[in-house]
Amino acid sequence: MVRELITVEGHIIDSDILRRVFNRIVEDGGEFEVVEFTVGKSNDAPSFARIEVAAPDPATLDTILEGLSYLGAQKVVGDVQFGPAEADGVLPDEFYSTTNFDTYVRIDGAWRQVADQRMDCAIVMRAGRPACVKQGHVKHGEPVALRGQGIRVKPPERSRDYGVFGFMSNDLSAEINKSIAIRTTAAEMRRTRAAGERIVLVAGPAVVHSGGDVSLARLVRAGWIDVILTGNAFAVHDMEKSILKTSLGICQLSGRAVEGGNRHHLFTINAVNRQGGIRQAVEAGVVTSGVMFECVRRPIPFVLAGSIRDDGPLKDVITDVVAAQKAYIAALDGAGTCLMLASALHAIAVGNLLPASVRTVCVDMTEAVPTKLSNRGTMQAIGLVTDVGYFLEKLASDLLDGATDAPSRQESPR
Amino acid sequence: MVRELITVEGHIIDSDILRRVFNRIVEDGGEFEVVEFTVGKSNDAPSFARIEVAAPDPATLDTILEGLSYLGAQKVVGDVQFGPAEADGVLPDEFYSTTNFDTYVRIDGAWRQVADQRMDCAIVMRAGRPACVKQGHVKHGEPVALRGQGIRVKPPERSRDYGVFGFMSNDLSAEINKSIAIRTTAAEMRRTRAAGERIVLVAGPAVVHSGGDVSLARLVRAGWIDVILTGNAFAVHDMEKSILKTSLGICQLSGRAVEGGNRHHLFTINAVNRQGGIRQAVEAGVVTSGVMFECVRRPIPFVLAGSIRDDGPLKDVITDVVAAQKAYIAALDGAGTCLMLASALHAIAVGNLLPASVRTVCVDMTEAVPTKLSNRGTMQAIGLVTDVGYFLEKLASDLLDGATDAPSRQESPR
Amino acid sequence: MVRELITVEGHIIDSDILRRVFNRIVEDGGEFEVVEFTVGKSNDAPSFARIEVAAPDPATLDTILEGLSYLGAQKVVGDVQFGPAEADGVLPDEFYSTTNFDTYVRIDGAWRQVADQRMDCAIVMRAGRPACVKQGHVKHGEPVALRGQGIRVKPPERSRDYGVFGFMSNDLSAEINKSIAIRTTAAEMRRTRAAGERIVLVAGPAVVHSGGDVSLARLVRAGWIDVILTGNAFAVHDMEKSILKTSLGICQLSGRAVEGGNRHHLFTINAVNRQGGIRQAVEAGVVTSGVMFECVRRPIPFVLAGSIRDDGPLKDVITDVVAAQKAYIAALDGAGTCLMLASALHAIAVGNLLPASVRTVCVDMTEAVPTKLSNRGTMQAIGLVTDVGYFLEKLASDLLDGATDAPSRQESPR
Amino acid sequence: MVRELITVEGHIIDSDILRRVFNRIVEDGGEFEVVEFTVGKSNDAPSFARIEVAAPDPATLDTILEGLSYLGAQKVVGDVQFGPAEADGVLPDEFYSTTNFDTYVRIDGAWRQVADQRMDCAIVMRAGRPACVKQGHVKHGEPVALRGQGIRVKPPERSRDYGVFGFMSNDLSAEINKSIAIRTTAAEMRRTRAAGERIVLVAGPAVVHSGGDVSLARLVRAGWIDVILTGNAFAVHDMEKSILKTSLGICQLSGRAVEGGNRHHLFTINAVNRQGGIRQAVEAGVVTSGVMFECVRRPIPFVLAGSIRDDGPLKDVITDVVAAQKAYIAALDGAGTCLMLASALHAIAVGNLLPASVRTVCVDMTEAVPTKLSNRGTMQAIGLVTDVGYFLEKLASDLLDGATDAPSRQESPR
Repeated sequence: MVRELITVEGHIIDSDILRRVFNRIVEDGGEFEVVEFTVGKSNDAPSFARIEVAAPDPATLDTILEGLSYLGAQKVVGDVQFGPAEADGVLPDEFYSTTNFDTYVRIDGAWRQVADQRMDCAIVMRAGRPACVKQGHVKHGEPVALRGQGIRVKPPERSRDYGVFGFMSNDLSAEINKSIAIRTTAAEMRRTRAAGERIVLVAGPAVVHSGGDVSLARLVRAGWIDVILTGNAFAVHDMEKSILKTSLGICQLSGRAVEGGNRHHLFTINAVNRQGGIRQAVEAGVVTSGVMFECVRRPIPFVLAGSIRDDGPLKDVITDVVAAQKAYIAALDGAGTCLMLASALHAIAVGNLLPASVRTVCVDMTEAVPTKLSNRGTMQAIGLVTDVGYFLEKLASDLLDGATDAPSRQESPR
Repeated sequence: MVRELITVEGHIIDSDILRRVFNRIVEDGGEFEVVEFTVGKSNDAPSFARIEVAAPDPATLDTILEGLSYLGAQKVVGDVQFGPAEADGVLPDEFYSTTNFDTYVRIDGAWRQVADQRMDCAIVMRAGRPACVKQGHVKHGEPVALRGQGIRVKPPERSRDYGVFGFMSNDLSAEINKSIAIRTTAAEMRRTRAAGERIVLVAGPAVVHSGGDVSLARLVRAGWIDVILTGNAFAVHDMEKSILKTSLGICQLSGRAVEGGNRHHLFTINAVNRQGGIRQAVEAGVVTSGVMFECVRRPIPFVLAGSIRDDGPLKDVITDVVAAQKAYIAALDGAGTCLMLASALHAIAVGNLLPASVRTVCVDMTEAVPTKLSNRGTMQAIGLVTDVGYFLEKLASDLLDGATDAPSRQESPR
Repeated sequence: MVRELITVEGHIIDSDILRRVFNRIVEDGGEFEVVEFTVGKSNDAPSFARIEVAAPDPATLDTILEGLSYLGAQKVVGDVQFGPAEADGVLPDEFYSTTNFDTYVRIDGAWRQVADQRMDCAIVMRAGRPACVKQGHVKHGEPVALRGQGIRVKPPERSRDYGVFGFMSNDLSAEINKSIAIRTTAAEMRRTRAAGERIVLVAGPAVVHSGGDVSLARLVRAGWIDVILTGNAFAVHDMEKSILKTSLGICQLSGRAVEGGNRHHLFTINAVNRQGGIRQAVEAGVVTSGVMFECVRRPIPFVLAGSIRDDGPLKDVITDVVAAQKAYIAALDGAGTCLMLASALHAIAVGNLLPASVRTVCVDMTEAVPTKLSNRGTMQAIGLVTDVGYFLEKLASDLLDGATDAPSRQESPR
Repeated sequence: MVRELITVEGHIIDSDILRRVFNRIVEDGGEFEVVEFTVGKSNDAPSFARIEVAAPDPATLDTILEGLSYLGAQKVVGDVQFGPAEADGVLPDEFYSTTNFDTYVRIDGAWRQVADQRMDCAIVMRAGRPACVKQGHVKHGEPVALRGQGIRVKPPERSRDYGVFGFMSNDLSAEINKSIAIRTTAAEMRRTRAAGERIVLVAGPAVVHSGGDVSLARLVRAGWIDVILTGNAFAVHDMEKSILKTSLGICQLSGRAVEGGNRHHLFTINAVNRQGGIRQAVEAGVVTSGVMFECVRRPIPFVLAGSIRDDGPLKDVITDVVAAQKAYIAALDGAGTCLMLASALHAIAVGNLLPASVRTVCVDMTEAVPTKLSNRGTMQAIGLVTDVGYFLEKLASDLLDGATDAPSRQESPR
């Protein structure tokens, strides 16, 4: 048997880390002995464990230790190693792949936090600091962190006195009282504002089809949304409603389909593109209401990412998905809360780009998307299985009734 | 080739009957020639077709003609034949099985409408008139109608000037503006009242879990519901909320699960059964709010049907399912509209017992139950995929805001 | 602040118990200090913790301590208290409500295991031993255990070297390689046989509609199923297929609906009831293939529980749900593995009646039922979102290819 | 009242067109009188109707007539009008928007069929013939067909003797015997081959996760697939399985998640991109099995369309969605059958690009995508709610057992 000592510390019981360490060792074919254990004596104190891991051969031990490193367990305290990128977008095979948890690398004996934390990235030294960089954006010769020593992950700890947000995580049942969850979301948005952070909204076209656009427009007008990340369809149907009073050809007054109504979204794209884009269409008086109208008027930024399903598309759409991804990344800077409403493609794209520390509320009529997001490790996430029209109506009512405007956001230095 | 002439009449194009006649003939191996066709010249006039059906052999022709009889096509005009039930609950093998459409049988040369129309029944002569009787309730020796001549089905026709209710049928998409459908439902309830018909509610426990019970209690109090058909769980969780402020152990103020809260529904059953039942528990002041409370107070009747899942059950529950089915049947008499909310077992049970002419609104978070109901031939049905809490809140707001009470129901002679 | 010392021991980290203890204390408004902690040094050794709980007032402390008792934490070591049932089915209000985990009560200083462990029951002294009894079955005057001291719950511990079954629990994704899970299920069935335990099958009618009945009949014939718990519809459609080659009127060769095919299930009920029941219909040669046929032939027992949806029903159906529940309870005795296939009503009913130690495999096309079962605390459960026809075909192929018969079950003394 | 005579002909009863004509007139506020009606006397003969439409004012009449034109009803027999595109991608506002049904325009008194039929396009005169062109691809000044006279749509008619494919359309229930539908799909693929048409496959990554890739690779190797349309994820996970034996980090032998396995797909992208692309990676021996391997080896073409969710992406991915859409369009040329497997984004994109005459089989675990596709008017579509791994295993077994290779496709002159 070969052996190695590891240490792990923090709220490792509350955060379910110690249990996963034990499981990982045994599942991968090892054994362990707990050499030292100090449990945090009270709510505030962290725990500490020193564990001897044993395995039948060095290869198994390495596998175990790498698995444990993703759980924050430390083996050795050497510096992280770097290797040069072989070509643009081609990493050395031993590259370390990031999670969405805060990560530190040891350089010249000092632990430095990695910038721009997000999952499935390489860690690259750029401008003198380690940063998460998407594989495709790494340049030839840049130093790429290699897996092994000198990398420390800090999984998000559920504080022992966590508030209302925490207890709802991972509960996706449709059979709950949603008004409580919506109240919690409103409280979280107020907290985000108070902390000087930004509120990001990701929306799919069903927001418009379900009639939720009316409440969303109110929220934008009152300043509760800082940026909208979406695609061609949401913007088209929102403006279709302003121009033609239908959404995907369904009359929003009678609920009836208009024969030939599939023409309406093309007509809308045509009318807006003729003006040169959304802002110009609002300014020309072609679009006079709705979410996009309020975005232009306030103004707040929006990013429309293209997809192969798109008709048109609108001139505002970024049709190259790599460029669109970069635009989303830029828009997410400073985010404290993210609302993902009735969107699959764009919600999952944003989930891939967010650090775990950003709180997300994912609303959909089925469990599929919320489940997928939580499987990808988005820990601080509420999944709400409900009607998005209901969600927005209640949320707007909670945030706007009796109030006039959102508390102004102070740009924090983060 | 053997041949037979059939006739079919009514709004057979609008109601999609002629197309199904053609399909049926060809699918079952026959051919047809349209001998005579008169199309209704205007919105109001019915159409008429005389069709010669040809088949390679008499057995195939019989199969085709039987299939067509379910679509209202007429072959011959002899009297219906009856055979005696072999034993209690045992029919002659050639028994005719009913649909949920209006049915007539020819006796002594005259067409008589079958009473108590519902699907999957035998037609039995009882007290001098033909009536739908569930197989299990047929008595030894009773005359049972046999399939073949002398039976005429009248499929529901979609009038050419049908109103708002019709166009929504068979549209189950979650991505629609539900406020329109809810407004339509409210209008339908007003129409039902004006027609002197009854409004039946079928509810599952998720009505309580989702917080919809508050609005439902308002509707009962204001007289908008005439009878509630449900099971043990709905009544228990509704009263648990009155007694302990939880629903299935989930606090309805904070949304948090109470550890050991699974005790609460047993505690509730215990407290109510100690008094002798729901009415007694209300009168004793044990239950002081909620849907069951309002039912007792107004009063309106409710029927609780048992299931093998039940804890307890409450003393009010009918634990024999055959007896419960009879009680449901009695409660459905005179129904004009039926709301089915977040219920699977009891909604499908009621769907089996309703004639197609009763308009139903089926609300659930997934398509499964509404789809099943429409597959069973419940034609005049709206399926709404949305949050039942939302549905009830909006419905109560539409019906009660500005109004004080439901229009009183005049008992019609039907 | 009031304080109390509690102890908790076992594989409390692996089994996620310690984390839940900490959470419970803080969520309910308390604080804690870990006075003593011994972690199991190796895979096999249990851990031990002594924790001081503090709360602002005695009522809060009581709430916390009761919550902790459900997690296996011990406060005091007095004997359990009993109170007499007030009437048949009416408990003293302070009754203790059981979980589906092994439970012990302290009587005259000795800990005795509670018999017939299942959830949502009272603990009653009957025939000199403590046993789980459904509320409705408790008799006037019987001694009922009261909540408070002297009750110890032993949550199921995930052994540190648990096998293939464990790692799959709580993973409900449809996007996994199901052949692995099916292989695991087959291995578990072999293990159950080797242990002399019984294999219980719960089935819904979709087993027949999806064509899975063919493989299921093979499994019954080869002796892999010990009892079938189901309802009227499964048995009817299985025998409809034998008699008329359709399932709910859908031809099982061509997949086409037969117009008027809704008559077929009534015809089947009629043909079987005429003989006096299922066994008699098999013996008379009316039913000559299928699952029910194989059950009669081998023979293995089956229990058909009635529901208000039923047509007919078959004479074999127990129409009183309380009696049906008792019959299910009797049939579950000695169960080691339970397969729940495409059933909602009966699967959840069985989930309510099983101790947590019985391993269950729940197969359905949507997450709803598996999720509901795991929410109710059925810990040792695999949920498989897949086609039940596929599951049965693969399972039968794994268990039967190359083998001739199931290992015969030795009745163990349990 | 203003009036207009229209005519409609074809299998207008079987194809449900006449009913929709009547409904459209009444719903839009008009009345009608059937002036002349000749029903097709036998299976083969078309029907003919001349109908007088009346409306209260000219605007209403125009609305009605436009709606009817989408149903194939003819008003006047003038030539189609054209107007020039105002700019690249900007149409004249009166542009006609296409359906996915065969369309004819009248030019110089002659009816000419529109080329490249697909929905949501403009009809543009290009190279001397009318063709469907996506809005964004129309060039400044090109002649664009305007709505109004001279456009004739031919909705797909369900032949009175349609075969096995037809009867399954629009039946999405999960509770059916899927083996029948899979056999039908295999028959359809054989028919497609015999007709010299192409078989297109659209696949999502769940094909790999569910283990269906093994059977799909067999089908590609045997020549049953002519082109694969997919995205980055499918190709990555397919090759991940070849290189690392996992799919999204899930071991495909044990079903267990590998801690840190999220690194695997990035490693795969890196290994393949290092070689310069998929073909090069196969040739270099980096990828040695799987679907992509078989595509390169046979060879058959594949198109990978980018999305904003993508990691990497692979060098083969077309990251601009407009360019990707064009590549898909080119790949669909000559398609006779299209299989859409466990894909949402790419399946809907392809649905938008296909004429209604191409038969599609859409397989998914939920109804959502098949429903969406059929709502968009993809008429000749079977939706199958089942496990895609099951579907592929059965399909491969049906097509390949006993056979050695697909019948070679003769390029037809279409």
